[in-house]
Amino acid sequence: MKRRAVCPGTFDPITNSHLDIIERSRRIFDEVIVAVTTSPSKKPLFSIEERLEQVKDAVRKLDNVMVESFDGLLVDYVVKKKGIAIIRGLRAVSDFEYELQMALMNRRLSQGVVETVFMMPPEEYSFLSSTMVKEVASFKGPVRGLVPRKVTEALRRKFRK
Amino acid sequence: MKRRAVCPGTFDPITNSHLDIIERSRRIFDEVIVAVTTSPSKKPLFSIEERLEQVKDAVRKLDNVMVESFDGLLVDYVVKKKGIAIIRGLRAVSDFEYELQMALMNRRLSQGVVETVFMMPPEEYSFLSSTMVKEVASFKGPVRGLVPRKVTEALRRKFRK
Amino acid sequence: MKRRAVCPGTFDPITNSHLDIIERSRRIFDEVIVAVTTSPSKKPLFSIEERLEQVKDAVRKLDNVMVESFDGLLVDYVVKKKGIAIIRGLRAVSDFEYELQMALMNRRLSQGVVETVFMMPPEEYSFLSSTMVKEVASFKGPVRGLVPRKVTEALRRKFRK
Amino acid sequence: MKRRAVCPGTFDPITNSHLDIIERSRRIFDEVIVAVTTSPSKKPLFSIEERLEQVKDAVRKLDNVMVESFDGLLVDYVVKKKGIAIIRGLRAVSDFEYELQMALMNRRLSQGVVETVFMMPPEEYSFLSSTMVKEVASFKGPVRGLVPRKVTEALRRKFRK
Amino acid sequence: MKRRAVCPGTFDPITNSHLDIIERSRRIFDEVIVAVTTSPSKKPLFSIEERLEQVKDAVRKLDNVMVESFDGLLVDYVVKKKGIAIIRGLRAVSDFEYELQMALMNRRLSQGVVETVFMMPPEEYSFLSSTMVKEVASFKGPVRGLVPRKVTEALRRKFRK
Amino acid sequence: MKRRAVCPGTFDPITNSHLDIIERSRRIFDEVIVAVTTSPSKKPLFSIEERLEQVKDAVRKLDNVMVESFDGLLVDYVVKKKGIAIIRGLRAVSDFEYELQMALMNRRLSQGVVETVFMMPPEEYSFLSSTMVKEVASFKGPVRGLVPRKVTEALRRKFRK
Repeated sequence: MKRRAVCPGTFDPITNSHLDIIERSRRIFDEVIVAVTTSPSKKPLFSIEERLEQVKDAVRKLDNVMVESFDGLLVDYVVKKKGIAIIRGLRAVSDFEYELQMALMNRRLSQGVVETVFMMPPEEYSFLSSTMVKEVASFKGPVRGLVPRKVTEALRRKFRK
Repeated sequence: MKRRAVCPGTFDPITNSHLDIIERSRRIFDEVIVAVTTSPSKKPLFSIEERLEQVKDAVRKLDNVMVESFDGLLVDYVVKKKGIAIIRGLRAVSDFEYELQMALMNRRLSQGVVETVFMMPPEEYSFLSSTMVKEVASFKGPVRGLVPRKVTEALRRKFRK
Repeated sequence: MKRRAVCPGTFDPITNSHLDIIERSRRIFDEVIVAVTTSPSKKPLFSIEERLEQVKDAVRKLDNVMVESFDGLLVDYVVKKKGIAIIRGLRAVSDFEYELQMALMNRRLSQGVVETVFMMPPEEYSFLSSTMVKEVASFKGPVRGLVPRKVTEALRRKFRK
Repeated sequence: MKRRAVCPGTFDPITNSHLDIIERSRRIFDEVIVAVTTSPSKKPLFSIEERLEQVKDAVRKLDNVMVESFDGLLVDYVVKKKGIAIIRGLRAVSDFEYELQMALMNRRLSQGVVETVFMMPPEEYSFLSSTMVKEVASFKGPVRGLVPRKVTEALRRKFRK
Repeated sequence: MKRRAVCPGTFDPITNSHLDIIERSRRIFDEVIVAVTTSPSKKPLFSIEERLEQVKDAVRKLDNVMVESFDGLLVDYVVKKKGIAIIRGLRAVSDFEYELQMALMNRRLSQGVVETVFMMPPEEYSFLSSTMVKEVASFKGPVRGLVPRKVTEALRRKFRK
Repeated sequence: MKRRAVCPGTFDPITNSHLDIIERSRRIFDEVIVAVTTSPSKKPLFSIEERLEQVKDAVRKLDNVMVESFDGLLVDYVVKKKGIAIIRGLRAVSDFEYELQMALMNRRLSQGVVETVFMMPPEEYSFLSSTMVKEVASFKGPVRGLVPRKVTEALRRKFRK
């Protein structure tokens, strides 16, 4: 049986740090589903369609990686997809505590069936988050090298006016 | 090709929290090698022979788990064993920072070949560490339910006099 | 003279972790007042009337526990109620720093008269917060065992449509 | 050549802890520019004009300290002003991680030209933040000793009605 | 029945921060026992007799505070003394995690009978620890104002040669 | 008057992360004294003579950087050298708290004359510490790129047998 994992996130937008985690996780698992959450309450800069397209473009060369949008309770989605694990990137102590709480809640909600597995982004992206990328871009600062090329262009268009 | 992971530690002694992580990781990977480090500089309470025996006994029913002792540079060992990942349990913020540093160092030393994957112990063991178990046992306090049965007995013998 | 403590919070909604802290603190103090803050700026899911009723129902069997709503500066309220201490639950490092700042501010505002006392929730609720409960409930996930029975029902009604 | 540093912030309002950092940093550098960000997205309590006036009044006796408003990408501003460093106060662990990420991003954005230097507020202000000052003032609590005298008056006027 | 609490520590030596916590906790509880642990494994600077004498001298005017030496499992001692709570000071995030683990372990070992209650030292002692006092004294630095007067003298004698 | 800063440490051995901080700080200050502490209690791998030589070699091309050994109370040394600031690198949360305590203690011991200024190492060295370098070297792992060339050789000699 194939070992499948789900890598969830808002990806508003996807960064090179996200891509790095996806790239690493697909060496651990047989298949990785990148699950883009609609997250309307977060009022994302990019629509779910834009984000799906950006993520799909960024992972198009990774053959065992799929991209889907998703809405609802994460563990239900993972179970439906026959996933055995949720993959999360861990960058900072403040991430860590929230992530630990989520992981314990998800273990409980899935009655122990769904595991959470954490991976660490490379040190050169230790400062990188979607929020910081948007902040820099909103001031017309350079984001090249921090996000995929298509996202760089999309950010430029968003903040042109 | 089999996906093999290495779960390293001093295991002085192995606790139920360690066992939980091993149990979970063997569902993610095809094979898990529990690598007991000799760690002479830590002056362990139990000899490497005792610790190997305790760990082997604790995992004897888990068919895709192997136990070995090991000494030297961890990534060299993992590469030799054809492992693709190191498994570490993450319990607390203080663990987190050290573990992050180790993971980045190991990624560098293995030139990106060896990944570190973190898993979280269940909440009922969030306070549990080998050090705390030894401290309680040294004062003749009860450790049943915190460590495998054979370790309970071994701790009692160590601190009997 | 009776030793009275105040346990303040938004309780939107009260969880089993809150209840555990209240239960423990009433063994330390002669009387405990659970002070439900109106907190309009937090835009609570439940109205102050709903929250008061939920908390009152949850503590109805604890004879030295009272429930009140409150609005304004916490230390003024505690002094008016002749309380000697504020009780707060501490779960995570991120809580800790904010709580430390609040405790120092309150000590200063009360000129040293009002103390803050911290207690820790049991490990099985280490992942539990009102926010997480609402998130799970909003996706129709199960919250039984995490909140009092009446709150389970109230959450179901809120998110039915 | 004069060594010039920039001390950026929203200063909504300036506190005695900010003033302490400014006072210390002007002993390290030849000139310090206090850069008040307009920060419309944070919906500040005081307008940029009010905040500029409050900061100017608070530092009027410090001869090598200037005050300016600023908007846009911080490193661009620092480079334009021929600054060599950004000064930030560090109070708590939660500050620390965000500040570290900002510092690394700013180093990257300025191609290593702009350094970030951190200083620590004195222990008596370890609990002090603009947010907490506003919260206390909103409940008519005393803020004397926490902010400059003019800010005390301004807060009283804001929350009078 | 009297509410009794135990405030344990190595007190090598007692600092003004410890004294502050003891002073505050005796307003919460009817009686406070300061329990000085022998802690031979920590190789204390002062003998258990010296530390007991220093602590007794420092609290001699606090009528509901007793001082005892103790050795063994803390919860056993607290139960024997009919204490209902352990009092601990919380200063920093790094304290916090260890203390949380100890509190959960002690709750388990006492089957829920012994509670741990945390209090925070005043901000002016936020940097103060026995270790730092000894380090300063070892270099003949001034420790007046950080420890009781008798401890200042004792430190001077220890590091005279 | 020249602005002079002191950058203290055990430097056992000096790493590229230390060097980076020294390089940055000499752009902020007119002169930087790298103060190598003898630290006998830490049982350093390299003697004070070896460490002095390694540091001197590493900074030999930085014209406003001096190297000295030092023993005793740091603030006394800084005052004697007419320094206005102590420079410290901040890498992790665990560093942060200890460093904050040291900075506050040193401010108090120097009666506010000596400031502590923190700088952050670049992200590519976020995992790098002298301890980790020694651990890797002790297992014959590669440390090239983490420490100056002469230190690489010295480590190889130390761990050759």
